[in-house]
Amino acid sequence: MTYQITTILLLAFSVFMLTTACEESSSMDNNEASERPEYAIALHGGAGVISRDIDDEIRQEYVDALHEAIRLGRDMLEEGAEALDVVEQVVRLMEDNPLFNAGRGAVMTNEETFELDASIMDGRDLSAGAVAGVTTVRHPITLSRLVMENSRHVLFARDGAERYADMMEVERVDPSFFHTERRYEQLRRAQERDEVRLDHSGEQSMNPGGHAEIDDAKFGTVGVAVLDRNGNLAAGTSTGGMTNKRFGRVGDSPIHGAGTYANNETCAISSTGTGEEFIRHAVAFQISAIMEYTGASLNDAANQVINGKLQPGDGGIIGVSHTGEIAMVFNSPGMFRAAADSRGRFEVAIWDEEENLD
Amino acid sequence: MTYQITTILLLAFSVFMLTTACEESSSMDNNEASERPEYAIALHGGAGVISRDIDDEIRQEYVDALHEAIRLGRDMLEEGAEALDVVEQVVRLMEDNPLFNAGRGAVMTNEETFELDASIMDGRDLSAGAVAGVTTVRHPITLSRLVMENSRHVLFARDGAERYADMMEVERVDPSFFHTERRYEQLRRAQERDEVRLDHSGEQSMNPGGHAEIDDAKFGTVGVAVLDRNGNLAAGTSTGGMTNKRFGRVGDSPIHGAGTYANNETCAISSTGTGEEFIRHAVAFQISAIMEYTGASLNDAANQVINGKLQPGDGGIIGVSHTGEIAMVFNSPGMFRAAADSRGRFEVAIWDEEENLD
Repeated sequence: MTYQITTILLLAFSVFMLTTACEESSSMDNNEASERPEYAIALHGGAGVISRDIDDEIRQEYVDALHEAIRLGRDMLEEGAEALDVVEQVVRLMEDNPLFNAGRGAVMTNEETFELDASIMDGRDLSAGAVAGVTTVRHPITLSRLVMENSRHVLFARDGAERYADMMEVERVDPSFFHTERRYEQLRRAQERDEVRLDHSGEQSMNPGGHAEIDDAKFGTVGVAVLDRNGNLAAGTSTGGMTNKRFGRVGDSPIHGAGTYANNETCAISSTGTGEEFIRHAVAFQISAIMEYTGASLNDAANQVINGKLQPGDGGIIGVSHTGEIAMVFNSPGMFRAAADSRGRFEVAIWDEEENLD
Repeated sequence: MTYQITTILLLAFSVFMLTTACEESSSMDNNEASERPEYAIALHGGAGVISRDIDDEIRQEYVDALHEAIRLGRDMLEEGAEALDVVEQVVRLMEDNPLFNAGRGAVMTNEETFELDASIMDGRDLSAGAVAGVTTVRHPITLSRLVMENSRHVLFARDGAERYADMMEVERVDPSFFHTERRYEQLRRAQERDEVRLDHSGEQSMNPGGHAEIDDAKFGTVGVAVLDRNGNLAAGTSTGGMTNKRFGRVGDSPIHGAGTYANNETCAISSTGTGEEFIRHAVAFQISAIMEYTGASLNDAANQVINGKLQPGDGGIIGVSHTGEIAMVFNSPGMFRAAADSRGRFEVAIWDEEENLD
């Protein structure tokens, strides 16, 4: 008798639990279906020490540039453009804007030259392309896409990448095209302080000091992550690297898994910050892996990496997930960024997560 | 009354479950403590299509070379050497052996030159160093270690890396030092078949054909992963890349997260195979991430990636975990490899996982 009662109670309890679980699952599906945006885009124009006291005029220049970029991406997505095309076109626009450390406006190397890195990745099949240290290619993001689509390889470097560009239909410029007075001043200040020292002494300092109001000498990378109406994810990143860099230094921007990652099953990510730390922690891939292996949301995964693995000041990421969730997570004082989606989200921000400079 | 009986039964059941769980946990701890080796090492000399019909003499040359390398590592570890030193010294030995596609014996580029890549990583603090496309450095693994220990950067490429070498005390050689007749023949055959084509046509083939008995033209990388007596992990990889490569192609070997990874909390890994696939799947880091985020063993994690994410024929990895577990997992017909640990494990193998050519 006791045995029967217990059995009945346990059975009833099991049925109750199963029912509850099914209801939760069903209500989640409904919520997701109603809330999930048809497309989403996030972009960054670099992270770093960005003083809140910058001139209103300069601040407005950045806000306008971020607006222009996010509007281009949003409009393309609204019209049904493919994720890869949106990534490429928005990055190209930012490469042409001298405010950002990519393409025109890139920081200068120790030898007063420009060495540009970029990468792109297609979340549909994990296909990927990148170039490191190109010197005459106006839009390194486009050359990266050509590496992805026209070769079986992922990464071409320096003189080799220039020879590849010779074979491709891609716009070339004289290196002086990339020159801006602001970056030359940044280099001069960096060299005066010998900020990037690479010697046997072990006494290195890469701290770029504080008197520039926008200190993006290490961080001014641009990057875009997109979910399109077909549910495809893509991401791309482009940079001039670090002011006063030497020795063909390669940062995280052309490294898939570190600076860029896209996988339709999880998310699309572009990183900006101290590239070496992003390589050591495989930041872009790690966020995707946390989502895949723990079921975390994009923002949870990004926070675990940016605020749990990296050190304060290292930088940040922007990303979109396969469900259209947007993340813009950074541990530096500021990150130039913007986001938009099909549900009307449209924002531009520099400092706190809450602000919206729209 | 019924209620009381049910409560008592549920309580008794809970106590039983807790007791069982504790017993299991305790017995696992005992097993691990008694079975955990004090040190462990695994190494590879590349994966690929290795015919079982190779001459006994050639087979014996590889077996002897793998023996020599694993013995060096084992003896150093037995005497208490640090993981990083063991990785560097064993890779140097293999770089000097013309059988392997690293250092002397490296494959030739399309331009009949040698472009060497290497990387090293320290599991203690995730510090990392790498070089891509060096041409006059006898031991690229040693230059990688100098990048890690003497710069704040992770990766230097091509002419930039050569300039860094100029500043370091590292042995330089004339590029002809790396030449071997066998690799020249491989290049000639590859060029006859135009195997690595990089053009607009999209009709690429990198299949190196079948008539060489040991087809390691894509795969002959070397790599070492070590757990030392102090519980520190380190890994390193060195390669000449892919026969007939062009455009400064960078594969996975100098990319931390793809070709090499080490984290004292999880494992140390070195990869060998079609580098592009190892980059797209961030293979070395992904294995570490699966261990970290799901609690999987090293072998489970490696199998999930090599046999679950990659395609058959892509290659494989060797690795050791923080508990001294050794993994040598590959999806190609063969992988030159060896392993040893403090409990007397000492083995050399080429084909099936079961064999031991000791």
